[in-house]
Amino acid sequence: MKALIFGADGFEDVELIYPYHRLQEKGITTHIASMKTGPIIGKHGYEINADIAFKDVNPADYNILVISGGKGPEKMRLDEDALAITRYFFKENKPVAAICHGPQVLVSAGVIKGRKVTCWLGIRDDIVAAGALYEDCEVVIDRNLVSSRSPDDLYAFGREMIKLLK
Amino acid sequence: MKALIFGADGFEDVELIYPYHRLQEKGITTHIASMKTGPIIGKHGYEINADIAFKDVNPADYNILVISGGKGPEKMRLDEDALAITRYFFKENKPVAAICHGPQVLVSAGVIKGRKVTCWLGIRDDIVAAGALYEDCEVVIDRNLVSSRSPDDLYAFGREMIKLLK
Repeated sequence: MKALIFGADGFEDVELIYPYHRLQEKGITTHIASMKTGPIIGKHGYEINADIAFKDVNPADYNILVISGGKGPEKMRLDEDALAITRYFFKENKPVAAICHGPQVLVSAGVIKGRKVTCWLGIRDDIVAAGALYEDCEVVIDRNLVSSRSPDDLYAFGREMIKLLK
Repeated sequence: MKALIFGADGFEDVELIYPYHRLQEKGITTHIASMKTGPIIGKHGYEINADIAFKDVNPADYNILVISGGKGPEKMRLDEDALAITRYFFKENKPVAAICHGPQVLVSAGVIKGRKVTCWLGIRDDIVAAGALYEDCEVVIDRNLVSSRSPDDLYAFGREMIKLLK
């Protein structure tokens, strides 16, 4: 089983690091994808290596997509390959977990109309404008999609992310 | 089931935040203990609330003790109540998980003579001087004690920490 995590400079550190280790705890090979390979640096200074560029990802190789938050999603959403990967996961009903600002990528990919989603409060109005059904809750589950609001929700986000794989 | 995590200012952020959420994922009530209650701040700027002071902890209330790393352990090890809690867990063979600089507390508590332990490389010689059997490995398991070296080992640390509870 393989997992793909989207990250970019300015990522909310624990929102990437928690799922990264949590998935590996389960023995799942986990790759970090970004605009290019090499080190990316979080808001709080943690550095982690991007294993693969969006343009080189074959989404069929992966069982789950995780979109970390922070300042990364405003960069990821400008990358057409990142959006194509995201659309693939929704089209195939494969598991997607997005936290905090992660749903900005879902907005740009055009995949959340009519879907129940939560997110960082500051982007709530954009999620609603994109046609999503916003809920203020630690974790929202809508079929293949799990979403959470902030680092404080990681315990619930991690729990439901793992459940999606069953 | 209840878990106790030792933390103090300068904690290695993800070494506290990962087990904190990981234990709560399992539905375990998790308290952070420090020299006093109130906010503590990590090396990378994450703030988290200490729920209980070491002096007010009844260690019999908890099923596992986790000792986070970073700069916190050099403060915790000076607190006699923190050391007494630690000794209680070893005397009762209850689960203890320590990461990075966390084993500094085990040295001061006098509990690691003859035990297999790993830790942050920079304190290896102190661990060995205290009589521990050092191993350079992502996670070392010695009966009730699980230890890891650094944030990079969290996936293995989390996995074995949870196994200790079974």
